[in-house]
Amino acid sequence: MSSSHPLDAAIRLSIVDGNTFHGRTRPEWDSMVGPFGGITAAVLLRAVETHPDRIGEPVALTVNFAAPIGPGGFDISLRAARTNRTNQHWTVELSQNGDVKTTATALFGIHRDTWADTEAHPPSVSPPEQIDRDSAQEDFVRWAHFYDLRFAEGRFPGEGAQPSSTATTTMWIRDTARRPIDYAALATLCDIFCPRVFLRCGGPTAAGTITATTYFHADQHALDAVGDDFVLGTAHANRFSGGYFDQSAQLWTRDGVLLATSHQFVYFKGDVCHSGEEIHVRQRN
Amino acid sequence: MSSSHPLDAAIRLSIVDGNTFHGRTRPEWDSMVGPFGGITAAVLLRAVETHPDRIGEPVALTVNFAAPIGPGGFDISLRAARTNRTNQHWTVELSQNGDVKTTATALFGIHRDTWADTEAHPPSVSPPEQIDRDSAQEDFVRWAHFYDLRFAEGRFPGEGAQPSSTATTTMWIRDTARRPIDYAALATLCDIFCPRVFLRCGGPTAAGTITATTYFHADQHALDAVGDDFVLGTAHANRFSGGYFDQSAQLWTRDGVLLATSHQFVYFKGDVCHSGEEIHVRQRN
Repeated sequence: MSSSHPLDAAIRLSIVDGNTFHGRTRPEWDSMVGPFGGITAAVLLRAVETHPDRIGEPVALTVNFAAPIGPGGFDISLRAARTNRTNQHWTVELSQNGDVKTTATALFGIHRDTWADTEAHPPSVSPPEQIDRDSAQEDFVRWAHFYDLRFAEGRFPGEGAQPSSTATTTMWIRDTARRPIDYAALATLCDIFCPRVFLRCGGPTAAGTITATTYFHADQHALDAVGDDFVLGTAHANRFSGGYFDQSAQLWTRDGVLLATSHQFVYFKGDVCHSGEEIHVRQRN
Repeated sequence: MSSSHPLDAAIRLSIVDGNTFHGRTRPEWDSMVGPFGGITAAVLLRAVETHPDRIGEPVALTVNFAAPIGPGGFDISLRAARTNRTNQHWTVELSQNGDVKTTATALFGIHRDTWADTEAHPPSVSPPEQIDRDSAQEDFVRWAHFYDLRFAEGRFPGEGAQPSSTATTTMWIRDTARRPIDYAALATLCDIFCPRVFLRCGGPTAAGTITATTYFHADQHALDAVGDDFVLGTAHANRFSGGYFDQSAQLWTRDGVLLATSHQFVYFKGDVCHSGEEIHVRQRN
């Protein structure tokens, strides 16, 4: 079943040689410019997961979106820069015809049984069953229909939306086809929140993630416990200035387990977001 | 003057060839295992700043601490993986005798005049003049005396400290020798907060940052405006589990400008932090 899922199709890789994999973009995952960044993160993570030298589970992943990935094939070259007893540092690069499009570093490691505590608190929201599915994001990027999104706060600013005074979104997220969550899916979900400047402008504007870092708190046992259930995501921005802004996200299980924290720095063209200026939704297709 | 400052001494580089610089560790910056991570971040950033092909100012920096850097010389190799019109993606590696100790990616870019807003709020604390300098961290790592630290919350857990129920620290920070702040100093300050597990354990325990990412919101003009004044730093943790935890920090100017946001994932040995177990401060030297 899962092999026909659009996520699995997008992260499918073939072996070129010991340290190179080949993949292909899938048009159903197209975003504003090139593929959805969450899918790129997932395919880079999958490349490391697939490598025979890999030890442990994903711990941290940084992806730098250096240039748009064009439609078609791409190569992922990777190398374990350092293998320690309990963790391993990977350097990864995605290229097309020798042209570097994405660079990344990934840290894999062993999870051990230690003292544990969660200081952060999950947002206090209604359960997903009490919130309607929202399809506004699907009008902007087709891949959004792969997710059942139920917003408690900060819905995607579709047609007729007004600028918001804050850029916080909190929503329940579930794979529409109920594909059980794994690390690749978790990496994807960390980037599911639209650029925060969209909310401040009241609609889509030119913006793109340039670097994103995810910390995987969840071990495999925690992912198995989620299965195909909803996860609760929340994202906010700290500062917009000089053509850049940061945004941070958290993903929680229904019963309050923090699965991942994720951060990104985003380029934006601020000249289209002056107060009072009308923003047009630039709908795809 | 600034050339004799310990920060400048630690980030001094000589040219080996077009894409390789050579540096040396300085014992005054030793931390628990190898050099203070903030100094390693600074020297990697400085290598990119020094490269003749570099365009723009630092925008984002991710440093992966793959293995302890030993005392003595090290080589930094770097390469612009991608140069765009307004930004540039760098891949950087620090090695000793061919052995990779640190990997990094850095993003440099042009700051443009755009719509701007800060959603985050600086912590509400007394001004630094109303708080005494605290030297508890200097007993643990010698380099702490390079900084004038004035804690509003969550001071370094020195001799006799008790476990804390939260891991938040908020403090004023100023360079003791009043060296004006630059990007290298800012990168260093983002890592000045001790591992958050120390606060939860009531004292130092085995822990080390494995990856750290800093987003530079400040342009050169904003740094010039700070000069040699105090900056306000705050750091917290979200979740401790499986031998890892995350911590996030913000650095603010006295008048509420957010200079940088920074995030890291830290390895810890949780078996020494069981409740009720006595924690001994493992003082250096």
